[in-house]
Formats: sequence, C-alpha cells, structure tokens
Amino acid sequence: MEHMTVNPRLGVLGGMGPQATQIFYQRILDRTDAGCDQEHLSALILSDTAMPDRTAAILSGKGETVYARLLEDARLLQSAGCTAIAIPCNTSHYFVDRLQRELSIPILNMVRQTVKSLAAQGRKRVGVLATDGTVQTGVYQKECERAGICALAPDAAVQQLVMSVIYDEIKRGETGSREKFAAIDRALHVMGCDAAILGCTELSVYRVYHGLPEFYTDAMEVLVEQSILTCGKRLRTV
Amino acid sequence: MEHMTVNPRLGVLGGMGPQATQIFYQRILDRTDAGCDQEHLSALILSDTAMPDRTAAILSGKGETVYARLLEDARLLQSAGCTAIAIPCNTSHYFVDRLQRELSIPILNMVRQTVKSLAAQGRKRVGVLATDGTVQTGVYQKECERAGICALAPDAAVQQLVMSVIYDEIKRGETGSREKFAAIDRALHVMGCDAAILGCTELSVYRVYHGLPEFYTDAMEVLVEQSILTCGKRLRTV
Repeated sequence: MEHMTVNPRLGVLGGMGPQATQIFYQRILDRTDAGCDQEHLSALILSDTAMPDRTAAILSGKGETVYARLLEDARLLQSAGCTAIAIPCNTSHYFVDRLQRELSIPILNMVRQTVKSLAAQGRKRVGVLATDGTVQTGVYQKECERAGICALAPDAAVQQLVMSVIYDEIKRGETGSREKFAAIDRALHVMGCDAAILGCTELSVYRVYHGLPEFYTDAMEVLVEQSILTCGKRLRTV
Repeated sequence: MEHMTVNPRLGVLGGMGPQATQIFYQRILDRTDAGCDQEHLSALILSDTAMPDRTAAILSGKGETVYARLLEDARLLQSAGCTAIAIPCNTSHYFVDRLQRELSIPILNMVRQTVKSLAAQGRKRVGVLATDGTVQTGVYQKECERAGICALAPDAAVQQLVMSVIYDEIKRGETGSREKFAAIDRALHVMGCDAAILGCTELSVYRVYHGLPEFYTDAMEVLVEQSILTCGKRLRTV
C-alpha cells in the first residue's frame, strides 16, 4: 500500500482508554477554529482496545508486550499516511523515545510538552496525578528534573484514590467521584504544590466532566493544542 | 504492509462531518456493555475532513470525486486490518453498493438497516429528514419502497429548515435550534407521518444534544447497534 499524502493527517494511537481517546478528539473539534467540515484537521484514530493494560504490564515486567503492540500500531498509522502521531495515554509515554527511533514521522510528546508549559508558567513544585505505572517509571519526574521543576507523587493512600478514580470509575464508564477528587486536591495543597499535572487521560476525562481550576495542567489539553497547531489549523480563541 | 488480524476491528469512514463521527464513536462507547478498556470494540476511525461536501458534489454532477475518495479511504481501512466498515454519513450511502463491490470486507449499510428497523416497528408513512443530496438521490425512498413503506420528503420550505440546522448550526459547532426543529416536527405531523428518519448524522448530533421522542428513528443509532454486534460485543441494557 502506497500513500503519497502530503496534507497533514494526525495519527491518534489511542484506545487507552477508549473514552479518553474519544474526549481527546472531541477537544480537538472544540478547540479548532472551524466553520465547516473541511476546516477541521484530518485524523486517523486507532482505538486499540485490545492493548494490554499499561500499568499492569510495566509493573509485572511485561512492558515489552505493550511496546511491541504500540510499535505495530504506530507503524500502521505511519503506513496509512499520517504525518504526526499523538498518543493520548500518559503511561505509554514511558516508551515514546524508543518508538520515535523506529518511525520516520514525529510523535508529539505529551509529557515533554506539558512540562514545557509548566516551566513557562513558572511553576516550581508540581504534583503528579497519574497511574502507578506512570509514577513508578518516573515518566514525569525525569522531564521535570530536566526543566528544574520539583515533581512530587502523592503518598500511598492518596495514590490509591487516584487509581480508584481512574480504574474503578472513569474506565468503567462513570464520571468520577467529586469526594475522592476533593481529598486528592487537599493532599496536593498540604504537600505545598503550586500546580499539579493531570497526567492520566482518564483524569482529563474527569476534568471535562466536572471542570477544574487552573492549578491543574491537563496533559491531554496540551496535546490537543499541539495537535491542532502541528496540523496547520487555527486554535479557537476562547 | 501485511496484517493478519483475525480479531474484529471496526473501520469508521468518517469526518462527514467530524462532529458526527465523534458522536458516533461516543454512542458506541455508551451503548457497549464494558467494564474495562479491553471489553470495548477495537476501531480505526478515519476522520477525512478534506472529503468534499457530499450534497454539493452530487447535486453539481461531481459525485465521482467523492466516490473516488470514499473508495480510497475504504481501501485504506481494509488494508489496515479492519473487518467491517461503518460510514456515519447518510448522503454517502448513495455510493455504498458500488463501494461494496470493490471491497472484500462488508460495509454495514446504515440506510438498509434503518429501513429494516422501521419495517419491524410496523411503520407505514415515514418522513425523511436528510440533506438535499440524500433526498434528491432517493437514498431512503428506494429502500423504503422495497420494504413497502411510503417515504415522504418535506416540502421546499421545511427542507430548507432541515438544511439550515445541518449546515448553519451543527456543522458550525452549534447545538441546533429547538425552534427550527419544532417547525419541522409540526410539518411531519401535518403530513400524516407515523414516524420519521433522522437521515443525516448532523441530525443525530442534534438528537444527542436535545433528545427526541421515539417517533424519530435515528439512523446513526441503528448503525451504532449494528457496529457493536458485528464486532462481537454486547449491548448495554438501558
């Protein structure tokens, strides 16, 4: 199969989870300054729901299975004429640099871009709300360190609340409990954070449903903006 | 590129418009009985926003441009390992039988399935709410005739209201005016219809935003159900 597409087309390596991928694309539509179909970016969205759970795989030493599948999926998007790839899954970013080396089209790095945005805002002490897989592999901590930002993970009890919102609620199709999130929010302020990263796309889904203050930087929203601009489209002024 | 995928994967030939494609996939997530990522169907969603407007092309005799692009897109989905194709765009169904002859995987026929559903409900006199392209090419009328159902298009003034909801509102990112829809609804009842087809996915978007009574059969919702079942997943009991 040969494609000679020269027009930008965003490849979305998604399905992790499918609801997050869904809202990622909805946010792209909402944030694009478009008055008809043709002014929206062209996208090829792979919702690979059979992808093994990233956190479970990484923490049990089976990360290579996930890596192999991500690579297969990324190659599919590349072969199908995509000109850039967005991966609306923070945990998967553990593998992004390796994936990038195997591809000829760029992967938009959600983690790096989010930390850049925090640095530009002058944030110094940032809480990381993410899956156990993202936290324990230090995906955000490493990028923050490079940018001179102190990244803090919540303690075990609060981390359990974060995991519960992600797995027991959002991934089951629920909207997420405000009570659990309020407890997480209190803990971040007790830790002395001046910002927090929504570093799991299921938490981005929570934000879209409930709204959250500017204290929270939503990694998915950062990726939405980067995706629109990379494809040569205009951001809607809010 | 070779793929030996045996697992079902839904190819979505979309972007017509992108918001309709978006809501089509959201409805698949909402209607699937799933408790984790892996219980959702796997999908490859092509949001081909550069596709020329279908109604404009058909009515100006440039339908072949649209056909060629639909075929290219369908082949891309087939090459990428999809096992069935859904096209959440009613107007494009004008080309579906021709497209099907060029493919080795089935296209789920939204129009045929919708008319089947109306026949099963015992409907006899059905209003068709759709674009000028869908109405003038008789996409629904032909299927209804075969099923012994009388299909009625609204008069010119009401058809203009339908087009206005689709093009001036939904495709511009608005939610659609209840006043215009109320006028359309009144006209359908004056025409003596015992049902109406939401035969444009932008009108399906309107329904998701505002809700509509059972008098309306939403073609997109019919396609959602067919897609979930074709991929071997279970429908959530409402």
